[in-house]
Amino acid sequence: MVSEQWIAGVDLGGTTTKIAFINLNGEILHKWEIPTDNSNEGQNITKNIANAINQKLADLNEQKTKLIGIGMGAPGPIDYETGVVLNVVNLGWKDNFPLQDSLHSLTSLPVVIENDANCAALGEMWNGAGKGARDIVCVTLGTGVGGGVIANGDIVRGINGAAGEIGHITSIPFGGAPCNCGKSGCLETIASATGIVRLAKDELLKAETQGQLAVIFAANGSVTAKDVFDSARNGDEFAQQIIQEVGFHLGFVLANIANTLNPEMIVLGGGVSRAGDILLDKVNTNFSNFAFSAVKESTTLALATLGNDAGVIGAAWLIKNKLNL
Amino acid sequence: MVSEQWIAGVDLGGTTTKIAFINLNGEILHKWEIPTDNSNEGQNITKNIANAINQKLADLNEQKTKLIGIGMGAPGPIDYETGVVLNVVNLGWKDNFPLQDSLHSLTSLPVVIENDANCAALGEMWNGAGKGARDIVCVTLGTGVGGGVIANGDIVRGINGAAGEIGHITSIPFGGAPCNCGKSGCLETIASATGIVRLAKDELLKAETQGQLAVIFAANGSVTAKDVFDSARNGDEFAQQIIQEVGFHLGFVLANIANTLNPEMIVLGGGVSRAGDILLDKVNTNFSNFAFSAVKESTTLALATLGNDAGVIGAAWLIKNKLNL
Repeated sequence: MVSEQWIAGVDLGGTTTKIAFINLNGEILHKWEIPTDNSNEGQNITKNIANAINQKLADLNEQKTKLIGIGMGAPGPIDYETGVVLNVVNLGWKDNFPLQDSLHSLTSLPVVIENDANCAALGEMWNGAGKGARDIVCVTLGTGVGGGVIANGDIVRGINGAAGEIGHITSIPFGGAPCNCGKSGCLETIASATGIVRLAKDELLKAETQGQLAVIFAANGSVTAKDVFDSARNGDEFAQQIIQEVGFHLGFVLANIANTLNPEMIVLGGGVSRAGDILLDKVNTNFSNFAFSAVKESTTLALATLGNDAGVIGAAWLIKNKLNL
Repeated sequence: MVSEQWIAGVDLGGTTTKIAFINLNGEILHKWEIPTDNSNEGQNITKNIANAINQKLADLNEQKTKLIGIGMGAPGPIDYETGVVLNVVNLGWKDNFPLQDSLHSLTSLPVVIENDANCAALGEMWNGAGKGARDIVCVTLGTGVGGGVIANGDIVRGINGAAGEIGHITSIPFGGAPCNCGKSGCLETIASATGIVRLAKDELLKAETQGQLAVIFAANGSVTAKDVFDSARNGDEFAQQIIQEVGFHLGFVLANIANTLNPEMIVLGGGVSRAGDILLDKVNTNFSNFAFSAVKESTTLALATLGNDAGVIGAAWLIKNKLNL
């Protein structure tokens, strides 16, 4: 009997790199983290990953042949022809870095790289909320709003790698808040943690608001997105209004995405999505109002199930896909 | 030397069926039309197509072996597993009709069917405005607004076949005009020929408008979309305002589609698109305002080049694709 083979999934972040050994069913067998070493123009990053993988295999008494490849999610734009990461300054790399070639040279294993938001979407498709689906859209509601689009079972990258910029869909065409991207009224200015805090503060500063959230604000001089959701759950009407507004814009934007792509599922992940049903219910209501009937009947909204593991699992899928396993 | 092989492309419409013989470069060699016979519960439709193809081959002194397959665009939803057209009452078919099997039985040729809006998009991708691109979105601005989405070189249908319902993307979330689909504020209520006429009439009825369009309206009691564009070209400010409004909503919606998919090209076809630059310029201006920077740099808007031939050419592509040619 041939023993089970593993794939190494790597999720490269600005401060931490997550690594996992994953089987061909998309299940994590071992996972750990190493610091991302941005010094020396990022020249140690791939060496550290290769060493960490070798060390872990040794610790587990496994041969290198146990691994069939390394899939890796990286932040920022990627040249998929060459496996070069473009202009990711916060990793220390000057200009472009040949990530795929570098890691392949160090490990002699097949290496596939992909944008990290796309990896998260692939992870949820392979073994998460979208398991078994071939058409899903993943939206990550974190500090910003990111996205990944999968159609016909494969990532949609677009001509310039900018597909999935769901956070920069305009939801307020006139008079919206300025976005870091240079536009205004982007979904990210409303539905990210940052956006929710902004909405709350704008109102708390100008209105004579009462309730739990106002008390927190008076005490701390600030509020968090979690404060908003907690206060809403405790009956704070002002906080509920903010969630209503967030739910409106998410429902509006996601319905329009669904009218374009009719995915089986739209998966909401990231810190803000942990608010759960109090947010999802409002998103669903607005989604139903703005979705075309045949879309409303067939596209469902769901919360992500893999959390921070989505990235390494999706990265591992890249190898499964490349090797046609 | 093996002689050139042909594909039959068929574009099935409610009153007319377009048929063409097309070579493997996507070029039309012969094209003609037959009436669509909706009588007898639509039982003659496929017989008539098979007969028309045989007759044309005979007229051209060609053997049936000249043809390698029949690709066909059909209106309405399709079950792609079985090649059955669902609920297309205006063709006379009761409930569902096994279009693919029926035409295959009659011709002994490979038959592939696809939604007609998707065929138009495939045609523009194969040999039209989007030639050579693997990611395009086609938007047909006619009596209604239809769409086709191609990602990674293949049609995106979605889980319920409702991908590409671009006409039913909501552009006016509150207070928009009612749409035939049951929602309100859909792009179709603004950017279709019907929508443009509605916008013009609403204003002409209530305002003391002057200019060419008002004169036409006073004389005829109605205006056409072409009247609006012609009047705008002749300096009618009121007509120009209407086009500004149409351009705004098209630019807004298409930028948000591009923020999601970053296609190489968005192709505008259909009767309204024949207005040309007077419309396209305004769409481009608004598209630039609402597109994410990396999208704005890479996704271009273009006018369709194949006109009414897009459907048969895209239908023929289905066979080329199926046979891996």
